[in-house]
Amino acid sequence: MTTTPDSRPLAGLRIVEVSSFVASPLCGLTLAQLGAEVTRVDPIGGAADIGRLPTTAEGTSIYWTGLNKGKRSVVADLRSAEGQRIVQDLVTAPGEGGGILVTNQAGREWLSHDTLSQLRSDVVTVEILGRRDGRPGVDYTVNAALGFPQITGPREHAGVVNHALPAWDVACGLYAALAVTSAVRRRERTGLGSHVTLPLDDVALSIASTLGYLTEPQVNGAERDATGNDVYGTYGTDFVTADGGRFMIVALTPRHFRDLVSVTGTHDAVAAVEKALGADFARDEDRYRHREILTALFSPWFRERSTDDVRTALAETAVLHEQYRGFAEVAAGDAVTANPLFAQLDQPGIGTYLAAGLPAAFDGEHYFTGPAVDPASVRQAPAAQNAGESGSVS
Amino acid sequence: MTTTPDSRPLAGLRIVEVSSFVASPLCGLTLAQLGAEVTRVDPIGGAADIGRLPTTAEGTSIYWTGLNKGKRSVVADLRSAEGQRIVQDLVTAPGEGGGILVTNQAGREWLSHDTLSQLRSDVVTVEILGRRDGRPGVDYTVNAALGFPQITGPREHAGVVNHALPAWDVACGLYAALAVTSAVRRRERTGLGSHVTLPLDDVALSIASTLGYLTEPQVNGAERDATGNDVYGTYGTDFVTADGGRFMIVALTPRHFRDLVSVTGTHDAVAAVEKALGADFARDEDRYRHREILTALFSPWFRERSTDDVRTALAETAVLHEQYRGFAEVAAGDAVTANPLFAQLDQPGIGTYLAAGLPAAFDGEHYFTGPAVDPASVRQAPAAQNAGESGSVS
Repeated sequence: MTTTPDSRPLAGLRIVEVSSFVASPLCGLTLAQLGAEVTRVDPIGGAADIGRLPTTAEGTSIYWTGLNKGKRSVVADLRSAEGQRIVQDLVTAPGEGGGILVTNQAGREWLSHDTLSQLRSDVVTVEILGRRDGRPGVDYTVNAALGFPQITGPREHAGVVNHALPAWDVACGLYAALAVTSAVRRRERTGLGSHVTLPLDDVALSIASTLGYLTEPQVNGAERDATGNDVYGTYGTDFVTADGGRFMIVALTPRHFRDLVSVTGTHDAVAAVEKALGADFARDEDRYRHREILTALFSPWFRERSTDDVRTALAETAVLHEQYRGFAEVAAGDAVTANPLFAQLDQPGIGTYLAAGLPAAFDGEHYFTGPAVDPASVRQAPAAQNAGESGSVS
Repeated sequence: MTTTPDSRPLAGLRIVEVSSFVASPLCGLTLAQLGAEVTRVDPIGGAADIGRLPTTAEGTSIYWTGLNKGKRSVVADLRSAEGQRIVQDLVTAPGEGGGILVTNQAGREWLSHDTLSQLRSDVVTVEILGRRDGRPGVDYTVNAALGFPQITGPREHAGVVNHALPAWDVACGLYAALAVTSAVRRRERTGLGSHVTLPLDDVALSIASTLGYLTEPQVNGAERDATGNDVYGTYGTDFVTADGGRFMIVALTPRHFRDLVSVTGTHDAVAAVEKALGADFARDEDRYRHREILTALFSPWFRERSTDDVRTALAETAVLHEQYRGFAEVAAGDAVTANPLFAQLDQPGIGTYLAAGLPAAFDGEHYFTGPAVDPASVRQAPAAQNAGESGSVS
């Protein structure tokens, strides 16, 4: 698991992040995992996310430390001309791999692409916006305005269900990392800088368009209904066992479906229904259309068996399946404790725990970073002093 | 909105995709938006996703065409030695920008990194896996095994709520595009190829670790409860108006909160509660801890006003807010029809509609691709013939 930093794909890049919350820090973390040197700049006392929940019993933010692993830390008085100059110098310092800024603090003249490009003509800036018109927006408001909460949740629940995962922030952070890497490739070939703007609401709209959620009403004049825990467009849903275990089952292909029919011993009943309905359950559309009948046929098999028996029987089949688990169970299980994606991290302010690296393994190697600086050192740092261990910046 | 293809950041790259469903095709689409030439290879008759719902009334897949925009198409008999050789030649053809494969069809010896690197030593392969042990997995099973469905949904609903957006597929596709771009940067500097493996379950685990969902039980010994539509860790929830409109409201900062108190005319009541509870509502933790009381104080203002009046009043404040909308309303509204992210696309098999480009704008320009080939031409193509317009491959 030893890594020679210089062999990583983004070795030699130096990125400055003036950022907070999820998308922008996730961009910096991901670039750091790929080998870039990333410096997060915070205002005096820390940004608005410095103490964000969840925290340890002692008050250190698990959230902040998780998203800022492997970064240098600089604290500057961003309201003073001197502090602004320090950040500008940090971004535009000479050197092949430098001249890269990622920020969610758009609209500041002193940090704008125009200002920075006068100091370094090939600067790459990535500005993450809330909304494309410059107004603020966050994952939860962007998601509300888009339509996903209306198709999420139990069918009997008339209302909207927000997602728990801030999926748009995650996608936005990854698009931002891709924008940096793509812009750097162009700069290395042509010498040109780039000014990239990336609005969170456009991230969500673009994905919703590409996946057909917006195209469907445009083309067909209708939008889809909520499907509860059923998978849209094929056969998949959740089942409860005799002792209360719960499994998610997906039959995406005819083979998966045949195996599901076989393991549940429902061949005759399914064949009779298929014939009576004039359906062809080898087709996605027909499995989806008649999903409630199919679920009613399969349910007794699950309901009458223990979780262990269901797990053992499904393991012998091609059926896509997983038992629902909570975070605590996952964190204590093999997926974390026996997975090379995770390595021990000694995090100041938190202690030692198993932290994930980059999910993409290059030539069999997962890339990890060191810990975040202790957020307490950011809170307490005077202006223009490093909270981290990267040496003085002024 | 005219684009000179050669100015795009990934101009000159040639990528072959042997892929299906969401993650791998989204990777290819994103790289195509950034200027790469992407060829999707399908087996005779098309892959399992060729007709996936939603479809038009005539049966063309809106899903497939959305995810495969801007790609060339090659159909080959992937079970024959000749078809396999055609694909190998396509991937390993000489030329600086070639030698790149993205696939979710892992475990095929003829398409493996080892085999391809013998034909071209600097080949970059990105293999998207379902699960890290090579077993299949899809977004909905990976998500079930991780914990998010247990913290999603109305608090009164005892159970699990699947997300509707395949968020892990989306994140996986973007990580894959980032892996390609990073590996290309390394190859352009060192001449080295890369063999990248990217399991969908590790994507989900890595994000869950970074955002603290797994770290919280590891460090604190406890996992969080479902919070319904409330935003975890600060103040945010949804409210219903007199005529049934619904708004998502987030007060992420003290200023947002002061404005929310002010617009709802609840200053005296909130101040009295704050004092009685010994709370400080300038702190995220205190707003979150006492969120039910706060929601009860704010609700009457929403309940007694029309949707229009609520919208007008909130627009005057700093409070983060959006009205919940469905996909049909979004598709017909300014977010799509008056947004430079969308451009008319004439899609064979579908017709003309407004399709989104890349959400990241480079120097003010959104990058668009042409349409997908008509999936009917893929279904009908004989082996080793192009379904698209890229000329013969053999």
